[in-house]
Amino acid sequence: MRPLIALDWGTSSLRGARLGIDGEVLEERSFARGILSVNVGGFQAVFTQHFGDWMGAADALCVISGMAGSRQGWVEAPYCACPAGPLEVAARLAWIERDRIAVVPGISFESGGVPDVMRGEETQVFGALQLLSLDSGTFVLPGTHSKWVQVQASRIQSFATLMTGEVYALLRHHSILARTLPEDDAPLHGHAFDLGVAHALRGPGLLQCAFSARTLALFGRLPQEQGTSYLSGLVIGEELRSRSPVGAHTVTVIGEPALTQRYERALSQCGVRTQVVAANPAWRGLFEIAATLQS
Amino acid sequence: MRPLIALDWGTSSLRGARLGIDGEVLEERSFARGILSVNVGGFQAVFTQHFGDWMGAADALCVISGMAGSRQGWVEAPYCACPAGPLEVAARLAWIERDRIAVVPGISFESGGVPDVMRGEETQVFGALQLLSLDSGTFVLPGTHSKWVQVQASRIQSFATLMTGEVYALLRHHSILARTLPEDDAPLHGHAFDLGVAHALRGPGLLQCAFSARTLALFGRLPQEQGTSYLSGLVIGEELRSRSPVGAHTVTVIGEPALTQRYERALSQCGVRTQVVAANPAWRGLFEIAATLQS
Repeated sequence: MRPLIALDWGTSSLRGARLGIDGEVLEERSFARGILSVNVGGFQAVFTQHFGDWMGAADALCVISGMAGSRQGWVEAPYCACPAGPLEVAARLAWIERDRIAVVPGISFESGGVPDVMRGEETQVFGALQLLSLDSGTFVLPGTHSKWVQVQASRIQSFATLMTGEVYALLRHHSILARTLPEDDAPLHGHAFDLGVAHALRGPGLLQCAFSARTLALFGRLPQEQGTSYLSGLVIGEELRSRSPVGAHTVTVIGEPALTQRYERALSQCGVRTQVVAANPAWRGLFEIAATLQS
Repeated sequence: MRPLIALDWGTSSLRGARLGIDGEVLEERSFARGILSVNVGGFQAVFTQHFGDWMGAADALCVISGMAGSRQGWVEAPYCACPAGPLEVAARLAWIERDRIAVVPGISFESGGVPDVMRGEETQVFGALQLLSLDSGTFVLPGTHSKWVQVQASRIQSFATLMTGEVYALLRHHSILARTLPEDDAPLHGHAFDLGVAHALRGPGLLQCAFSARTLALFGRLPQEQGTSYLSGLVIGEELRSRSPVGAHTVTVIGEPALTQRYERALSQCGVRTQVVAANPAWRGLFEIAATLQS
């Protein structure tokens, strides 16, 4: 196996790892050079500046996941339709430099006449499958746009995007609810968070239950410093209510601890067991994709 | 019956009507003097400036509905708990000037440990009941915060607030969806609106279906000028999905035509019959409340 340079080039950050022949991480780098900070035509220069030394080896191979493959990225890598595993994705790599630098395509899934897309999360899921020795399962990647991913036989069969993090931020900062919330985020208040989750799970939907963040405050039943925890619980609870048909008994949560802890807590309130992927699964996922090229 | 000066003093506007002894409107006035434009202690002066001449009659009676009765208004009129009809509300009027000027209290309703409130809409519902010769029914008052109101035996039994209009505005102007929407609102595109309603009605919730406004645009299946109509359909459709347990076969829609027409269209897609209240029901509602004082 050739030495792999694994890159996760997203909207707001650029991270890279130099991997050993068994996929072990030898060295990591991280830069605030997400694709939004790079001008059209400027990707090669940013790449060379930050990773040119690693690419010096004659047989170096670089595989890049994330928004670098979007229309606004380095090169557009058209979506690969579900079902898709490392093999399908590897067959559709967009090569920037033949046999040296490639971008992983995003994944698309269509249901009821409506397409859904992701870029980067597929690679993390492939990595998580390897790290946890799984070939199927339900995965959630919480964030601005949460992804729920169903895997069978090591291939992503379907997925859904929920605008959970973005809707939370809109309600928290720009809606009438902001008037009764503190200016700064307080640490998570577990009980208020749980109340929000429980209220959302009862239904009948976010448009209605969101207003409770205001009325509970008006009636003096929700202290101001607990408001953001309650609202976070409401929005995450609504996400779980939406995904309940999935009916998984174990959900694998992939992400930063501050967020995965909230999902673990909310999922346990639904009676769903969780496991969390501790290491960054993107490096392992890129390693798997690269491995299929050389087998 | 004494001559009634009926006022609807809301957040952003101040409207008044001089009514005849049978509740007929003799004269109307409207000012951009909502409570947000009035300083603390300034309400009496604004009132006298705009309605002092009407109040000149020795036996004049003025009853005011809306946010003028809130903590930020002229005088705080504590909420009246459901069930509440004109009699219950009239018994809890907040008198500014004894037997001359009164503010209608808002209504509160509690369900599952969560309170809900409204101010002003209850008076419109009382008026609509009279104008349509009803004593029961399901009423929707669309807007920034839509109200769904259940009436039996001429009293409001329960209601719910949905942040539909506000969430639409947040998604339309401040979310990632705004990037694929036109800067200016195009006229309603019926087919795109219907598609949005249908997609929301299928579930599984706004957090997920909202993202379709982006993916459909990315895949070239939703022309930019239809985007706002589609998003409007999504959000109103989600409101109807939330309220489906109500199971009403006829819903009375109260509001401005631009909005009631969308709700009529969306409700008909659900197989629900609608009727619209054409005249301003607030005047009639205030007349009913005042009438109970003098019977």
